[in-house]
Amino acid sequence: MKIAIVGLGLIGGSLAKAIKKNTQHSVYAIDTDKETIRSAIEQEAIDEEITADELKMCDLTIICLYPEGIVEFVRENAGKFKKGSIVIDSCGVKTAVTYPCENILEDYGVRFLGCHPMAGREFSGFDYSVDNLFDKASFIITQTPNTKTQLVATVGNLAYEIGFRKVVVSTPEEHDRIIAFTSQLAHIVSSAYVKSPSLTKQSGFSAGSFKDLTRVAKLNEDMWTSLFLLNKDPLVDEISHIIDRLTEYKNAIETENADELKELLKNGRELKELSNNMSLER
Amino acid sequence: MKIAIVGLGLIGGSLAKAIKKNTQHSVYAIDTDKETIRSAIEQEAIDEEITADELKMCDLTIICLYPEGIVEFVRENAGKFKKGSIVIDSCGVKTAVTYPCENILEDYGVRFLGCHPMAGREFSGFDYSVDNLFDKASFIITQTPNTKTQLVATVGNLAYEIGFRKVVVSTPEEHDRIIAFTSQLAHIVSSAYVKSPSLTKQSGFSAGSFKDLTRVAKLNEDMWTSLFLLNKDPLVDEISHIIDRLTEYKNAIETENADELKELLKNGRELKELSNNMSLER
Repeated sequence: MKIAIVGLGLIGGSLAKAIKKNTQHSVYAIDTDKETIRSAIEQEAIDEEITADELKMCDLTIICLYPEGIVEFVRENAGKFKKGSIVIDSCGVKTAVTYPCENILEDYGVRFLGCHPMAGREFSGFDYSVDNLFDKASFIITQTPNTKTQLVATVGNLAYEIGFRKVVVSTPEEHDRIIAFTSQLAHIVSSAYVKSPSLTKQSGFSAGSFKDLTRVAKLNEDMWTSLFLLNKDPLVDEISHIIDRLTEYKNAIETENADELKELLKNGRELKELSNNMSLER
Repeated sequence: MKIAIVGLGLIGGSLAKAIKKNTQHSVYAIDTDKETIRSAIEQEAIDEEITADELKMCDLTIICLYPEGIVEFVRENAGKFKKGSIVIDSCGVKTAVTYPCENILEDYGVRFLGCHPMAGREFSGFDYSVDNLFDKASFIITQTPNTKTQLVATVGNLAYEIGFRKVVVSTPEEHDRIIAFTSQLAHIVSSAYVKSPSLTKQSGFSAGSFKDLTRVAKLNEDMWTSLFLLNKDPLVDEISHIIDRLTEYKNAIETENADELKELLKNGRELKELSNNMSLER
């Protein structure tokens, strides 16, 4: 299969490297940065650079741009994809991307599937891409009422072939609700965490818990601003929820209510244990 | 030197193992659980079990109990320590422990130093103790107006000998203020995080950020209830602070203020970068 990747950032670059390492497919790439293309060819992450006009030779196009960029790219190049081919994306919000892209491409006989490879790093760009980023990751596919099951099978099997550990099939709406909690809230909380006046004194006073809680505060603010605003309602709900929970702990400590505090902590421990037992991360 | 360890839990057990591995000192232990003592002798983590009456042969006693248990143990056994010997503790709050213990022991000619080895695991008990728990950790020593510098030197050098990466000298009050942020707040936030209704759906939708943010929710609620209540004011300040910060992000997202949201995220990223640059964890 001939695969085109649009955007060789951390995710696009890592997908290219994983495909070249784990499959026999050819990889072609479009990127506005010539240095990135040069570097990708040199590292054998891609076979060749192509132009948008050459997308017509590709069976699958993976668009690895920011959310707005994906819809824009699809709109501007809708007539250039091969008829009957598949276009997927890799961004972290699905409702705002999947329906517009699906609608645009339907008229051109091109099948769109909104996807989300669940991995990342606290660095951006091709220079940080690695061929094993997805080895322990799940690959989320979002189905709409128009999605043919055969399309899910083709893309899902490719994800396993690329090296993903698990394929999860969801809907754009369900994906966005859950991701608000598992990923977006984590970045907000981490970013808020480091703003304490105590931050500048933490050296030598921190162990694993501080490191874990603050790791993802080192984020790409352009990308995350876009992701957060495109998933406003579920994310605002999650932030409100954690604020309410934090207030419960604060009240129990302020009133020195040991029984209440212990119960709050015990409930949290039990929920974490359940989540460990239910989860991939086990 | 003859070292006694009181309480062979995760920290006491790991200290015993690290001392036996990295130094020539003898290690004696007191623990109410006979199975733990048997296991510690079998694993050569300690040389022998002793009774409180045998503390008089030890040059240094390390008390690795919960905070209240430390003051209680010191009060009940004050006359049993060797005159001129050193007693230290290892718990996570210092003001509530250091001053009472120092005062009690002063009358017996025994020197007390409040200490805090900055490492832990999300498991409790001797079974989880390891000889390398402190390899990348700092060892905090808290000085009071009565602490002789010579005592800090003796204990600090021992910490390096045991394998700690860095010794940090602070005061009980400063320690408690900073630890409220670097450790206690992390446990509260993690515990609050897992309480979202979305938790039970996270499997397959989570990557490293979820795992990091929630790891320490799996905590020992008895110990942490005690630590939190003994450090009430600094901890309530930190929880209030992060609630206020989270509210700023929530408002920016609710009002779709992209510029404000990007600025909040950028500030967080810059603070995290500073903290990385200043920190051990680099």
